[in-house]
Amino acid sequence: MKASRLDRVMRGMENMGLNQALVTATESVYYLTGQWIAPGERLLALLIGPKGVKLFVNHMFQAPEIEGLELIEFDDADDSVAALAGHVSSGRLGVDKAWPSRFLLSLMEKRPDVQPVNGSAPVDEARMRKDAEEIAALKISSHMNDRVTGALRKSLAEGETELDAARRYGELAAAEGASGLGFEPLICFGAGCAEPHHVTGKARLKKGDSVILDVGVNIDHALSDMTRTVFFGGATDEQKKVYETVKAANAAGKAAVKPGVPLCEIDRAARSVIEQAGYGPNFLHRTGHGLGLEVHEPPDVSSVSPAIAQPGMVFSVEPGVYLPGKFGVRVEDLVLVMEDGCECLNELDREFMIV
Amino acid sequence: MKASRLDRVMRGMENMGLNQALVTATESVYYLTGQWIAPGERLLALLIGPKGVKLFVNHMFQAPEIEGLELIEFDDADDSVAALAGHVSSGRLGVDKAWPSRFLLSLMEKRPDVQPVNGSAPVDEARMRKDAEEIAALKISSHMNDRVTGALRKSLAEGETELDAARRYGELAAAEGASGLGFEPLICFGAGCAEPHHVTGKARLKKGDSVILDVGVNIDHALSDMTRTVFFGGATDEQKKVYETVKAANAAGKAAVKPGVPLCEIDRAARSVIEQAGYGPNFLHRTGHGLGLEVHEPPDVSSVSPAIAQPGMVFSVEPGVYLPGKFGVRVEDLVLVMEDGCECLNELDREFMIV
Repeated sequence: MKASRLDRVMRGMENMGLNQALVTATESVYYLTGQWIAPGERLLALLIGPKGVKLFVNHMFQAPEIEGLELIEFDDADDSVAALAGHVSSGRLGVDKAWPSRFLLSLMEKRPDVQPVNGSAPVDEARMRKDAEEIAALKISSHMNDRVTGALRKSLAEGETELDAARRYGELAAAEGASGLGFEPLICFGAGCAEPHHVTGKARLKKGDSVILDVGVNIDHALSDMTRTVFFGGATDEQKKVYETVKAANAAGKAAVKPGVPLCEIDRAARSVIEQAGYGPNFLHRTGHGLGLEVHEPPDVSSVSPAIAQPGMVFSVEPGVYLPGKFGVRVEDLVLVMEDGCECLNELDREFMIV
Repeated sequence: MKASRLDRVMRGMENMGLNQALVTATESVYYLTGQWIAPGERLLALLIGPKGVKLFVNHMFQAPEIEGLELIEFDDADDSVAALAGHVSSGRLGVDKAWPSRFLLSLMEKRPDVQPVNGSAPVDEARMRKDAEEIAALKISSHMNDRVTGALRKSLAEGETELDAARRYGELAAAEGASGLGFEPLICFGAGCAEPHHVTGKARLKKGDSVILDVGVNIDHALSDMTRTVFFGGATDEQKKVYETVKAANAAGKAAVKPGVPLCEIDRAARSVIEQAGYGPNFLHRTGHGLGLEVHEPPDVSSVSPAIAQPGMVFSVEPGVYLPGKFGVRVEDLVLVMEDGCECLNELDREFMIV
């Protein structure tokens, strides 16, 4: 067990008045145990309670013995929720926000004396404030992403598809030694850039296209996530104006980051720049999201985020402007909140660029 | 809306005594609407009820108007569960088995008059029996997987890593025109083959290794999934014996497939062959799983499966034997249940092979 992380989670539970909680997300179980178990449709649960910490896992995953952890295995022929239900106490039970409803509803049926509540806050809050080990790993991941994205940006070729560029990103990352990708590369050409959740596809690169590269690597579960936008073979005045607006919004968002600042104010700082340039309605999403073991994790950097910047938080600042049918621009960096401001984890330049 | 699919789901709801149900999994929403929306941590829900069918979706996904569907949009600044809660009626509500607990618990708090139950069976049962459109697409996907896996099997090179081979699978699939992969390729060399949920990694291929290739492509959401095992540069008598046992178990499992047969008997047919050869304890998992829009979906092909084979079902038959520290063998095909037996969707040969 990762003792100092478990301590933080247990203090968080105490603050919530919870004496038992289920941690079920693969990333959260890994955070606390160091074991990466992706159970697919099978049950995985770490029960933190007054009788210690117990891991419920299908024995096909061959989880090792871990000091301070009781291992409770079942197999495909067992009712996995029944294996768990007998270990839970009456009363309030914190439940992982990501736990699939089929398990929760089955547990509620077997144990009507248990009151489930969303019990993710203690783990979320611990995971939000990265420790030194995590920060070191996240920096290495972002710096690799800088190198790979820089190389990809220079190698774009007329007529290639978004999927071709995405695959090349994967090859370049592999050559750098990444264990995998942070997420499927989101590569958009031309009008596809105006769909903020475009799916990388078969569109071919042509002169005058905006090109969004929203990419990240995975190095032993330390993720990265950055977006750069360039223009292929030329750019219109409107494209340049939008680009400079978004770049200024990215800079304004990052400049607002320091401990104690509500994250909604960081959203506001970035959004104001875009609104003042007249593109407010074209910035369709929040300014950013936390990142670490997951590519999207707390905190939320939006106009309604209740979170306050704290040292150790890592999140994205990624304003964008999307002009339907025409083009789109997004500029995204990861920032680490420091005692006296913030550090940008991405060093790849973000000048207006025609490639 | 896909009218005939919706009809089947509504009849299933009626059989369960449900007059309202939430469908939330991306794949199930796609199955019914034709729209692929991957909401990440955001809420997505299709409410099927007495007042029609309503889709609750964040407006950043730019869902189109669909006939027969009321679109209810919210944005990142809204409480998405509140947007949904007002549209649900008192009483029993079917809930998608995959719905994250954070949404379910929030809905339960807002609407204590609603009794959530696991309401996935109607969608699961509709999705289990593939229609002609799905069957045609799944065959194309499996046949592409046959070609790509055949090419990969022949190209294995001494000293390369599992990750190298996995990347080559992706490149070969892309060259064939796949839109993506069915899942991350699971490639195992040597002792790694004995871990049934090994993670493709940096192990290097050496003479005498067993090689498990568990791979599939994705063609516009039609997935495939097949496993072939070969031996690199030579094989021991024990390796050959285990291979022939697993191959015979795969054949016995497939031979048992016809309408009306309980899927637990298919598991039994495959498992018996392995038990009779003395390797029963080394077959650590169920015999198979359904596949379609998801790589693992109902039905379950295990010793405790309550499902009965019905025409249109597509599932895997994938027995394996795993000898810890030494090697492992798995042979997996997808089968389609036909009126008079079954059709194997994979045509790539499965002879004992040294490459």
